[in-house]
Amino acid sequence: MRKIALFIVTLLSVTAMAQTVKSPNGNVSLTFALDNGIPTYQLSYKGKDVVRPSRLGLELAKDKHANKGYNETDLMDGFSVANTQTSTFDETWKPVWGETATIRNHYNELAVDLLQDATKRHITIRFRVYDDGMGLRYEFPQQQELNYFLIKDEHTEFAMAGDHIAWWLPGDYDTQEQETQQTRLSEIRERMGQAVNWGNSSVAVFSETGVQTSLQMKSDDGLYINIHEAACVDYATMHLELVDAQTKHLSQKLGGGSNDYTPNPKPSPYPLPAPLTFVSHLTPDATGLKGAMQTPCQTPWRTVIVSDDARDMLSSNLILNLNEPCKIEDTSWIHPVKYCGVWWEMIVGKSSWNYTNDLPSIKLDLIDWSKMTPNGRHAANNEKVKRYIDFAAANNLDEVLVEGWNVGWEDWANMWKRDVFDFVTPYPDFDIKMLNDYAHSKGVKLLMHHETSSSTQNYERHMEAAYNLMNKYGYDAVKSGYVGDIIPRGDHHYSQSMNNHYLYCIQEAAKHHVMVNAHEAVRPTGLCRTWPNLVGNESARGTEYEAFGGSRPDHTVILPFTRLQGGPMDYTPGILETQLSTWSDNPNYVHTTLVGQLALYVTMYSPLQMAADLPENYAKFDDAFQFIRDVAVDWDDSKYLEAEPADYITVARKAKGTDNWFVGGKCDENGRKVNLRLDFLDKGRKYECTIYADAKDAHYKDNPKAYTITHKTVKKGDVLKLTEAPGGGFAISLIAK
Amino acid sequence: MRKIALFIVTLLSVTAMAQTVKSPNGNVSLTFALDNGIPTYQLSYKGKDVVRPSRLGLELAKDKHANKGYNETDLMDGFSVANTQTSTFDETWKPVWGETATIRNHYNELAVDLLQDATKRHITIRFRVYDDGMGLRYEFPQQQELNYFLIKDEHTEFAMAGDHIAWWLPGDYDTQEQETQQTRLSEIRERMGQAVNWGNSSVAVFSETGVQTSLQMKSDDGLYINIHEAACVDYATMHLELVDAQTKHLSQKLGGGSNDYTPNPKPSPYPLPAPLTFVSHLTPDATGLKGAMQTPCQTPWRTVIVSDDARDMLSSNLILNLNEPCKIEDTSWIHPVKYCGVWWEMIVGKSSWNYTNDLPSIKLDLIDWSKMTPNGRHAANNEKVKRYIDFAAANNLDEVLVEGWNVGWEDWANMWKRDVFDFVTPYPDFDIKMLNDYAHSKGVKLLMHHETSSSTQNYERHMEAAYNLMNKYGYDAVKSGYVGDIIPRGDHHYSQSMNNHYLYCIQEAAKHHVMVNAHEAVRPTGLCRTWPNLVGNESARGTEYEAFGGSRPDHTVILPFTRLQGGPMDYTPGILETQLSTWSDNPNYVHTTLVGQLALYVTMYSPLQMAADLPENYAKFDDAFQFIRDVAVDWDDSKYLEAEPADYITVARKAKGTDNWFVGGKCDENGRKVNLRLDFLDKGRKYECTIYADAKDAHYKDNPKAYTITHKTVKKGDVLKLTEAPGGGFAISLIAK
Repeated sequence: MRKIALFIVTLLSVTAMAQTVKSPNGNVSLTFALDNGIPTYQLSYKGKDVVRPSRLGLELAKDKHANKGYNETDLMDGFSVANTQTSTFDETWKPVWGETATIRNHYNELAVDLLQDATKRHITIRFRVYDDGMGLRYEFPQQQELNYFLIKDEHTEFAMAGDHIAWWLPGDYDTQEQETQQTRLSEIRERMGQAVNWGNSSVAVFSETGVQTSLQMKSDDGLYINIHEAACVDYATMHLELVDAQTKHLSQKLGGGSNDYTPNPKPSPYPLPAPLTFVSHLTPDATGLKGAMQTPCQTPWRTVIVSDDARDMLSSNLILNLNEPCKIEDTSWIHPVKYCGVWWEMIVGKSSWNYTNDLPSIKLDLIDWSKMTPNGRHAANNEKVKRYIDFAAANNLDEVLVEGWNVGWEDWANMWKRDVFDFVTPYPDFDIKMLNDYAHSKGVKLLMHHETSSSTQNYERHMEAAYNLMNKYGYDAVKSGYVGDIIPRGDHHYSQSMNNHYLYCIQEAAKHHVMVNAHEAVRPTGLCRTWPNLVGNESARGTEYEAFGGSRPDHTVILPFTRLQGGPMDYTPGILETQLSTWSDNPNYVHTTLVGQLALYVTMYSPLQMAADLPENYAKFDDAFQFIRDVAVDWDDSKYLEAEPADYITVARKAKGTDNWFVGGKCDENGRKVNLRLDFLDKGRKYECTIYADAKDAHYKDNPKAYTITHKTVKKGDVLKLTEAPGGGFAISLIAK
Repeated sequence: MRKIALFIVTLLSVTAMAQTVKSPNGNVSLTFALDNGIPTYQLSYKGKDVVRPSRLGLELAKDKHANKGYNETDLMDGFSVANTQTSTFDETWKPVWGETATIRNHYNELAVDLLQDATKRHITIRFRVYDDGMGLRYEFPQQQELNYFLIKDEHTEFAMAGDHIAWWLPGDYDTQEQETQQTRLSEIRERMGQAVNWGNSSVAVFSETGVQTSLQMKSDDGLYINIHEAACVDYATMHLELVDAQTKHLSQKLGGGSNDYTPNPKPSPYPLPAPLTFVSHLTPDATGLKGAMQTPCQTPWRTVIVSDDARDMLSSNLILNLNEPCKIEDTSWIHPVKYCGVWWEMIVGKSSWNYTNDLPSIKLDLIDWSKMTPNGRHAANNEKVKRYIDFAAANNLDEVLVEGWNVGWEDWANMWKRDVFDFVTPYPDFDIKMLNDYAHSKGVKLLMHHETSSSTQNYERHMEAAYNLMNKYGYDAVKSGYVGDIIPRGDHHYSQSMNNHYLYCIQEAAKHHVMVNAHEAVRPTGLCRTWPNLVGNESARGTEYEAFGGSRPDHTVILPFTRLQGGPMDYTPGILETQLSTWSDNPNYVHTTLVGQLALYVTMYSPLQMAADLPENYAKFDDAFQFIRDVAVDWDDSKYLEAEPADYITVARKAKGTDNWFVGGKCDENGRKVNLRLDFLDKGRKYECTIYADAKDAHYKDNPKAYTITHKTVKKGDVLKLTEAPGGGFAISLIAK
C-alpha cells in the first residue's frame, strides 16, 4: 500500500518539477525532482532502475549557541527550486601514477539551487552523470542565513530496485578489517551477528543492517552496482543503513560528551523510506554528532557506479574524476615503490617489535634504554636490517620497511597512553645513521614506520620532528598506523576530525617530500588524485590476517570491486611460503596457492607493492620469485579481461614507459580454466612470455606450492590455455623483443 | 544515629590502626586510620577539628580492554596497611620571582603503603603536614597488578566540622568567571540558581552543591580553612561536591562518547558521607570519565590550609612548596613585566579586534585581506600601537600587549571552527616588523597575543611556527586565551587532556624562551614554581567584567584568599577613569575608587601587572599614575598586615634588590579606617613616603575619582592614619633615603 502511494506521489511530482540528465553515451540517466518540497533523485542504466526515487537531505542538531547564528532547522524539506544549471565537461588528465597513463573525465552535470523558503537558506545539489554512474553532493554557499551548522545526520537515500546480492562489511566506526559477507540485501540483518569479529581491537558497529562502502552489489537482472563516496574532506565517513522489513527507526547514536549540549534523544521525525533502501549514516564525534560545518562548504560526492559488465566496475575512474586535480606542484619526488621489510616475521609471531620484556609498562621519559635487557627477539636490529638491505639491492626492490625501530613498543595500543611513541628515538640495536648510509650505498632506501597507536594528538605533536628526522637520514616514504582506540577518547577512526587528521598528515608530509602509506586509516575516496603522495592505504583486511587465521580464498577477488574503488591498498602480497608452520610456530596458512600470491601484484593495483615474505623463503622459490623481481608497479595501460565479484579477475597491464605487459589472473576457492587471448599486444611484435601457473594438482589448502614456469614466444592474438587451481591464479610476464 | 555509629567505628579503628603526624610547630595534627579497610584521615588545628574523619579512595571505570590488563576493581576499600614511613623535610629555596626572596619548605611527612589484598595492588597515600595545613595525594607505583586504569571519580572527602561561612564559585567544567558567593555551607544549594550566570559563554555546572577550589571558609570558632590542590599535572581539575541534608547521591556525568564503552549508569555504590562533607569531583573527558592513568603516577596534592589568623592564609606557601622545584635550567630570560596594551578600548566596546565587517563568516585560506574593507574600528593598527609604545617608553612600562593584531577575529569563539587563527598572519594595518623595531628602539617589547578560541588542535598545529615568529621579531611573552567551547567537541576546559595541553604550551614556550600568561585556562595549582615562565593566568573574573556590568567591591579582597592561592593572576588593574561613559558608550563603571585601583598593584600579587587604562585616561590623572610608574612587580619580602576575607587586606612589600617598600590597602563596600604602623621598615632609616589616599567623601559609586596625594618623611614605628572609602583603599610608596 505504502509503496503504491509513494509511486503515485513521485509520478505526480516528477511530472511537475522533474529534470533529467543523461550520461554522454546516454546509458545512465538521472532524474531530479522535488516531491512536496523534498529533493529526490532516481537513476537508471540502459532503462533499468538502479536507484528508485530516493530522498536527499540533512538533519541538523540544535546547538547551545543557536542564538548566535547557528541554524537548527533541518535541511530536509520545504524547498523550492530557485535555479537549475546543466553543463558538460570533458577533459583528459595525467595521473602522477596509476593504472593508465591518462584518464578521461567526461560527464554531464546538473546543479539544482534549492531555496528553503521558511528559512531563506539556499543549498545546491550537484549531480555529475558519467557513462558508468554518477556522483551527487550537497553544497552550502556562504550566506547570511547559513554560516555554521552541526549535522545530526545526513539522510541521503539509495532505494534499491531489488533484493540484490551484496558484498558487504559490517558498518563500523573503527574497523574495516572484517571478512566480506555475501548475502541478499534482505539477509544482512540475519547475518550481522556472525559478520562481526568481536575479537578485533576496535569494533564499533551501530546497526544490525549497517554496512560500509564501497558496497558492491549485483542485481538479478545483471546489473553491477557500487555505492561509495569521493573526496571525503573534512567530513565524516559515510556508512549505509539498510531499511528492511524489520526496521523501526534509523540508528541514532546518543551523544553524551558534553552535558550542556542536548542532542535529540528521539528517533528522526522523518518517515522511513521503503524497505530495501539504504540511508547514509555518518561516523559521529565524541558527542554523537556527525559534523561541524562552516559555509562555503560541501559534502563528499555520493557515488553510484553501474554497468552490466563487471569489468567496467574495475576500470571505472569515476571516483578519481570526482576528486580535485593534483595540488602538489612539483611531483618529481613521488614515485612507485616495490619494497620488502622487517615485518612478516613479527606478524607471524617469530620475533617482536619491542626490545625488552623487563617492565610491565613503560613511560618513554623514565627509561634508560641502554640499561634494559634485550628480549632476544627484537627484529629491527642492525644485522637483520643489513641483510634485508642486501636482499633488496640484489632483487630490484626500492626500499626496506623496518617496523619496531623506535622505542615504545613494549606497551602501546588500547592502553589510553597518550605519549606512546616519539617517532625519533631508535632502540639501542638500530643504528639509524649507519643503516641509512649502508642502504644508500647500495641504491636502496629505508621506508620509515610511524605507528601512532591512534594517539593522534601525540603524533601531531611529534610530526614535524619526525618528518625532519626522515629528511635528515634520507627516508622518502612512511608507513603510518592507527591501531587501537582513538585518543582523544570518544573519537572514532572515521569521524570528521580523524579524516581531517589523516589529510593533515598527508599535507604536512608533502611539505617534506614524504610519501604516505597509512594503515588502519580511513578507507580512501580518491584523494590520491589531489595528493598523489598518498601512495597507499591499508583500510581493509590485509595479508596479515593470513597469519591470524586466514581470509577466504575469494577475498582478493572481492577487494578490487570494493576497497580498491577509492584508491590503492598496501595489501602486502608475496607470501610464497604459504605454510607458516614450516618456519615458525604459527599453525596458519595463506589461503592462496603460491602462484596466487604472484597474481596479486597485477590484479591488486597499487603503486606500492611489498614483497612481504622473508628472504630465506624467497630463496626456496627463487624461480617463482623472479616474477616479483620483474613485475612493474606503474602502468601506461590496463585491460580488465575477465571479472566477476568474488569469483575471478584477469587483467593485463602495460608497464610504464615500456612495451612490456604483465598479466595476472586470480580466482576463488573453485579454480577455473582460462583461455587467455593476447589481443592487447602490439600487432606484429613478438614477446618473450613467462607463465607462472599452478601445477595440475595444486590447491591452496593441501598443495599450495606446486607450480610450473613456462617460457615461450608469443604475439598478438595468441591464446594461452591456463588452469587456475582452487585459491590459485596465474602470472605472466610479456617482454617485448 | 548514623553519625554516632561512624564515630564509634572510627574510634575503634583509630585505636587499632591510627597514626598521627604533627606539623613542625605542633599546631596542625593529621591522623590517618584504616576504617574497616577504608583509608581515612582527620585534621585538627590547635586541637580544633578542621577535617573530621573522612574517607579516601578512587572509583575506577570498567574498560572494554579490561581483559588486557586494565583493572576495574575500585581503589576504595579492602585495604590493609603494608607499611608506613614518617620523615621530616626542611629546605629553603629561591623562587625565580615571587612575594619573598626565599621560601621555606618545612613539613613532616607520613607515607602509608596500602595493600588491597583481594587484588594484590599497592597504593601509597602521602601526607605532608605543615604549620599552616597539609597536603595529601595518592601514589600508584608501577606493579604487575596495576599498570593502567580509568578513573570514574575520585572520592576524597573533606568532612567539615561545622556549617562554615564559605566564599565559593559554582562548580563548573568550563568557567571560573562567576561572581563569588558568600553563604553558609548549608545555603549553597539554595543559592546555586542565582550564582550561575548563564550568560557566560561556557557554563557547565554539574551539581546544585558543586563548588570550585580554591574554596575559602571561616568557622564559627575562628578558623580560616582553604581547600585547593597543588601540582595538577596530567590529571583532571578537582571540584568539590557538598553532601548536604538533601543529597541523594553524588553527581555522575554519564558519558556517551563511545558506544562500545559502557559507563556505569548507576550511582556510586558507596555510602554517602555525612552532611557537610565535601567530596572531590573531577572534570570529565568527552566520554564522562575522569582520567586515564598509567603507573607510576600520582594525583595532585589535595590541600587544606588552616589558621586562626586570616593573614596566614595569604602568606602561605604551602601550595608552591608542594610543587616540584624549577625544571628550567637557565631562567635568566624570565623576568617580571609591567605592561600596557591595546585592549581596554575593545573590552569597553569602543573599538574592535576584527578588521572588516565585509563577510558573515570567514575562512582564513579563502580571504585576500588586502581586498577587504576596513571597518574603521580596528584598534591594532600601526598608528595606535606606536602611540602605546611611546607611552610605555615614557612611563617605565616594559611591554605593550596588542590584541587583534592577527587575522581571524571576524568570527571565532563558539562556532566550532577548528581553523580559527593561524597566529602568524597580521592584519594589513599591523606592520609586525616595523612595530617591533620601533618598540625595541625605545627599549620596549611587544607582548604577543594568541587567542586560541579553545580550538586546541589548531593551536598545537601552529604553535611551533607561532613561537618561531615571536623569536624572529623579539617577543618574549605571550598572552594566550581559551574563550569558548573546547575543540575537540565534548572536552572541557579543566579536563585531564586540557590540563596536559596548557602545560604542553608552557613547556614548548620555555624551549623558545617565551613567558606565558594564559587566560581562561585552568586555575593554577602552583606550577609556576616548576615552570616559572608561567608568569600569569586569568582563571577568574578579571577587570574586564567591570565593563560587562561590574564586580562587587569586595571581589578583590576575596581573590587573594581563593584564586591567588595557586598562582598570580593577570587581573589587569589600573582603570583610573572608573566611569566608562566619560569616554565611550559603555554605561558601566568600575566598582572601586581610583585609589582602590592603585592599591591592587600591591594587594593582588603578580609578577605581571598591566596598566590597563588608556594613555589619554592616565594623562587625566598623571599624579596618581605616578604610583603605577613607580610600583615594583617583584619582591624581596611581603608582610600581610591586616586581612579578613571579603572585608580588607593590607600588605607591605619590599621591592626586589632595593630597600624601598610599597604598601597597599584595599577594602570592601563599607570603607574603613586604618592605623598603619610602619614596623616593617629598617630601623634607623628614613623613607620618602608618598600616600595615595581616597578623599574624605570618596565613594566607588558616586565619587570614585576623589583622591589626595601626600608626601612626607617617615621611619620605622611611625603610624599613618588612613581612611579607605567604600570600595576604596590606599597605596603608599616608601623610598629609602
